[in-house]
Amino acid sequence: MAFDLRDGVRRTDLIGVLRAWTQDAARLTQGRGGLADLQHELAEGPSRLTVTIGFGPELLGKIGLGDRTPEWLQPLPDFPQIDRLEDRWSGGDLLLQVCADDPLTVAHSARILSSGVRDAVLQRWAQRGFRRAVGTDPSGQTQRNLFGQIDGTANPAPADADYDQLLYSDGADRRWMRGGTSLVLRRIRMTMDTWEEIERSSRELTIGRKLDSGAPLTGATEHDPADFEAIDQTGLTVIPTESHMARARPRVRAETILRRPYNYDDVPDSGQISNSGLLFASYQADPVRQFVPIQQRLAEQDMLNTWTVPIGSAVFAIPPGCHEGGYVGESALEG
Amino acid sequence: MAFDLRDGVRRTDLIGVLRAWTQDAARLTQGRGGLADLQHELAEGPSRLTVTIGFGPELLGKIGLGDRTPEWLQPLPDFPQIDRLEDRWSGGDLLLQVCADDPLTVAHSARILSSGVRDAVLQRWAQRGFRRAVGTDPSGQTQRNLFGQIDGTANPAPADADYDQLLYSDGADRRWMRGGTSLVLRRIRMTMDTWEEIERSSRELTIGRKLDSGAPLTGATEHDPADFEAIDQTGLTVIPTESHMARARPRVRAETILRRPYNYDDVPDSGQISNSGLLFASYQADPVRQFVPIQQRLAEQDMLNTWTVPIGSAVFAIPPGCHEGGYVGESALEG
Ligand code: HEM
Ligand code: HEM
Repeated sequence: MAFDLRDGVRRTDLIGVLRAWTQDAARLTQGRGGLADLQHELAEGPSRLTVTIGFGPELLGKIGLGDRTPEWLQPLPDFPQIDRLEDRWSGGDLLLQVCADDPLTVAHSARILSSGVRDAVLQRWAQRGFRRAVGTDPSGQTQRNLFGQIDGTANPAPADADYDQLLYSDGADRRWMRGGTSLVLRRIRMTMDTWEEIERSSRELTIGRKLDSGAPLTGATEHDPADFEAIDQTGLTVIPTESHMARARPRVRAETILRRPYNYDDVPDSGQISNSGLLFASYQADPVRQFVPIQQRLAEQDMLNTWTVPIGSAVFAIPPGCHEGGYVGESALEG
Repeated sequence: MAFDLRDGVRRTDLIGVLRAWTQDAARLTQGRGGLADLQHELAEGPSRLTVTIGFGPELLGKIGLGDRTPEWLQPLPDFPQIDRLEDRWSGGDLLLQVCADDPLTVAHSARILSSGVRDAVLQRWAQRGFRRAVGTDPSGQTQRNLFGQIDGTANPAPADADYDQLLYSDGADRRWMRGGTSLVLRRIRMTMDTWEEIERSSRELTIGRKLDSGAPLTGATEHDPADFEAIDQTGLTVIPTESHMARARPRVRAETILRRPYNYDDVPDSGQISNSGLLFASYQADPVRQFVPIQQRLAEQDMLNTWTVPIGSAVFAIPPGCHEGGYVGESALEG
């Protein structure tokens, strides 16, 4: 969910919002009801609830702290080749990302978090996404999206030596961001009708990976390294140079992002049978340096573009966590 | 999802739709891809998928078999005291109810089932609902709705001697319905904002049950029988006579329905933070004899009406199952 500050809201009001969210997030993730919640039963069994708070590009400026806005905290550049952005899925001053294994927990937590702060903020949009339900896929593979692709394979892992560096801000840009990260959210419609018209082999060439195992076309299992140089009998690369994977893969390691995609499948418009796609979410220390070059390449050329349309876009700074008694965002708002 | 027959569709076309649905439902529930599906991976691990097919009031008439329509297969009477029905959530010639433990399975199955039949039918509406995710609530209690109430307690159980009689048609009305049932679906908005203004004790009196355990106000545990005669110190019944439970409880056993409610929590309208409620679904041999008297009483008086608004309504005949090689609905369409 994204929210906009109401007119006239000041720094102290925003602190109130962030304090309320921090306290309720702490309580809800521990299975206790929100502070003003008379219905604590709905919070029992928090089902691995997480609550993530984000700051949009205009937030700090609106309360007179514009000089604390990180350089990279700005809307993405336009990608006119592909973008068909709609206001109702884009932007926002504040982000609340609420995730859990159980949809009732998500619905109730979202309600509690957004109902107490209505004097200060106005809900701008809400987007609902899902991954495979916990325990229903014993294969151990990465989740699949609605095109049937295994989606999320090539990702930095916590064991990587540069994981923290890729993911978390070192505070060099704005000191208060030290230990925080950023979220890029793109709502991308997937046109199921035309995708279903093409054969499996074309689907595999589009990505550069096999549909069954998620292995690169040059490999046998999901996590085999891809060989972008391998040539087939006809002299072409086995993984097409215009495939999504070949275009998206980082040209330099510093360009690596952590992708965490969610599927969406909403009520279709009248006469349609599908309204679905991906809530593409990526985390990175600096979206301008890490995300934008990838998106730029994909906008210029990517076989997948035929079947995908970005219809929403937002960027948020995710402030670092806080100590007991503090609130998320205090490093930006205090002092 | 509900569908309407396209103009000019005849009996043989409808048989084609039902054959396709029956075959794909059989395959998908067994973890095999649909017949025309190039993406069998999305069907693996069917997560207890069920597919239920229903006939709306006008279906048989539209293909010249109107005399086979059961007497009770008609839209519900109006309940002007409470109804604020919207076309976009009401009616339909055909129903497809798709349920599973996993949202990806539901999305993919719904897609497969609706994409192959577009020449013959037009999607009229789709509604998405949820219950607690499997495995996330170890309490053993019945599920809760978004008001926090345990919802679904007083229900006939398969062990009851009259269970089959209450649930399944004996074919006395229309022979082809023997072994079938009916579905009443009411989309009921729950106005969270005003509900949250009242105290727990008022919430409990509204239903006649306790919020924590779901026990009747006269009992200690969820499945204790309710005592509607018990009087408190002030001389009033402990369970208010205008409470939802007191008004809803069957006056005669033959009025009993099987309730299977789903929560919905959709993207709110602009400026709102919630768009939620209940997909109230009930199954019964004869909705006119079993469901309508209950709804009539609730429309006349029910404390819960202050916080609930029916915005959609539909009735379907659920034909009996079929043998291998047959199709669901054949008893109505053949001969
Ligand atoms: C609906 C839209 C999209 C779909 C269906 C999609 C799907 C996929 C799939 C199936 C893979 C291969 C498996 C994997 O490594 O996860 C992949 C890889 C990747 N995608 Fe996407 N993607 C989409 C949009 C995007 C966007 C918007 C970006 C960033 C701008 C992106 C960046 C990447 C990256 C960096 C990789 C890994 C490449 C590598 O190093 O091998 N994708 N995507
Ligand atoms: C949003 C709307 C509704 C809500 C929140 C709701 C909630 C509840 C709750 C909490 C109970 C008590 C626990 C239980 O036995 O499940 C209950 C019971 C019941 N409700 Fe509803 N209900 C709603 C609409 C309806 C409708 C439309 C009908 C039928 C017309 C209905 C019929 C019943 C019946 C028959 C019982 C059992 C009464 C008994 O025998 O004790 N409800 N409902």
